[in-house]
Amino acid sequence: MIHNLFGVSLPIVQGGMIWCSGARLASAVSNAGGLGLLGSGSMYPEELKLAIEDTKRLTSKPFGVNLPLLYPQVDQHIQTIIDSQIPVVFTSAGSPKKYTSLFKSHGIQVVHVVSSSEFAKKSEDAGVDAVVAEGFEAGGHNGREETTTMCLIPAVVDAVKIPVIAAGGIGCGRTMSAAIALGASGVQVGSRFAMTLESDAHGLFKEMVIAAKEGDTKLTLKEITPVRLLNTPFYKSVIEAYDNGASLDELRELLGRGRAKKGMREGNIADGEFEIGQISGRINSIESAENVIMQMVQEFNAVNSKLGNISF
Amino acid sequence: MIHNLFGVSLPIVQGGMIWCSGARLASAVSNAGGLGLLGSGSMYPEELKLAIEDTKRLTSKPFGVNLPLLYPQVDQHIQTIIDSQIPVVFTSAGSPKKYTSLFKSHGIQVVHVVSSSEFAKKSEDAGVDAVVAEGFEAGGHNGREETTTMCLIPAVVDAVKIPVIAAGGIGCGRTMSAAIALGASGVQVGSRFAMTLESDAHGLFKEMVIAAKEGDTKLTLKEITPVRLLNTPFYKSVIEAYDNGASLDELRELLGRGRAKKGMREGNIADGEFEIGQISGRINSIESAENVIMQMVQEFNAVNSKLGNISF
Repeated sequence: MIHNLFGVSLPIVQGGMIWCSGARLASAVSNAGGLGLLGSGSMYPEELKLAIEDTKRLTSKPFGVNLPLLYPQVDQHIQTIIDSQIPVVFTSAGSPKKYTSLFKSHGIQVVHVVSSSEFAKKSEDAGVDAVVAEGFEAGGHNGREETTTMCLIPAVVDAVKIPVIAAGGIGCGRTMSAAIALGASGVQVGSRFAMTLESDAHGLFKEMVIAAKEGDTKLTLKEITPVRLLNTPFYKSVIEAYDNGASLDELRELLGRGRAKKGMREGNIADGEFEIGQISGRINSIESAENVIMQMVQEFNAVNSKLGNISF
Repeated sequence: MIHNLFGVSLPIVQGGMIWCSGARLASAVSNAGGLGLLGSGSMYPEELKLAIEDTKRLTSKPFGVNLPLLYPQVDQHIQTIIDSQIPVVFTSAGSPKKYTSLFKSHGIQVVHVVSSSEFAKKSEDAGVDAVVAEGFEAGGHNGREETTTMCLIPAVVDAVKIPVIAAGGIGCGRTMSAAIALGASGVQVGSRFAMTLESDAHGLFKEMVIAAKEGDTKLTLKEITPVRLLNTPFYKSVIEAYDNGASLDELRELLGRGRAKKGMREGNIADGEFEIGQISGRINSIESAENVIMQMVQEFNAVNSKLGNISF
């Protein structure tokens, strides 16, 4: 299982989500036996440095950084990651070819996030240590093929030899067990950890997710970059724009800049964008990351022990 | 597990798919230990009678009928099902309130197909014996909420007390094991059985699915009734219509009538509509239904035995 690769106790990775995954969350997850990740995509270069320092102060366990490769100052982030001797980087939103060998030459493990078997193979060819395969139900940015976790994981597992970490729809022991049954070597959990006490997500964002029901998220803005959003005033204005036949430029103008920060960090319900996965309908409490992990592991063990006794 | 309810050996139900699920397929599945279903949605009343007679001649095991409740001559189908002493009917596309008590009064079990927890609860209230919960990745008609199997099954299992049969993306032992891990009491397998030797699907349809890759199906026509289609000339003309801002009436006219028969039964690639699930990308051979079931069970047992030995 994947935790042996990362030197942690559990095959549970916490997604490095923008505006949510800071030092408090990453350290809490690592302290509880998972692999915490800092979400560097919403941090200025100086902020990432501080977040790494804080995380090191808060945990002695391994933790990593999620790095969107299209980040404007990606070179500064890369230098910080190398200088800070971060053991593992999760790269996303960009080609794994460009930086993998640089990280590897510094002894840093690389995991690339993909939404298709094709990109999983390209990542393997680029020399990454593992891939995260993320299904359609995941929050935030997402694949155009819309392949769900149930269909994606067995396909990616069959397509590559490196370990596959399943993401999308996973936030409890049952879904973790299902992911392992599909052939994954571990899970990446996003939305569930975004909705913990230690997440930097704004309190109003957390309240909205608690209130959210099944079907309250949608994958939209597919012409720009597909993104799964919570049904809020901004989401409604996107739907309205589609209904009025908005052009690509009009959609881009509507999206504008800084909406994710406004929403997820600042709790601006009227104007903000709120990225969260389909499992938001099943999240009914805000707990500590440690509690989430303990409940996952307990349920995972109970489900597995039951499955071990079924055969035909 | 669900097979006890149906009096068969395995918790595997074969979806009652239009133009695919006739006497040959239903009897082959029932003979192999699963529960075969006739897809009555594409049969005239006389055809259903003949199909039931044929199936009874081909197997002595229990089999059922899938009945879309919006079928124009639904009353004739219902009378046939009652007269033929079919033990179980799978109802879909309509309210379970209307006919469940009628079937139950004749000793016929009722399973309703749903795509949300809300409709699962309504089905339970209507007195059905079980529900099929079908995720976004499934072929054919589908829910507007777009909830995937990974997210839908645990939610439905928590929402109702009756058994839940998982559908959508399931066609091998790994996905079957994942469905059971999510809390399902059995699985309904559609696409994989549509692509067997005994399926009435046209040979050209089968060839196209063998050739299909990951991402080659899309859920479309959401304004009429959401349906997952294979990427063919008709599908492309739908996309073109959307790009040109087609109205609801124009979409309805484009869809027209009889396209599913043209495609799936007659193999008319140019004009036909081909309904199939996301797992079509993982279907690479046409085998007997018995082989499909044997491989599923073998892999299911291997996965479960592995999971039974993992704990943290």
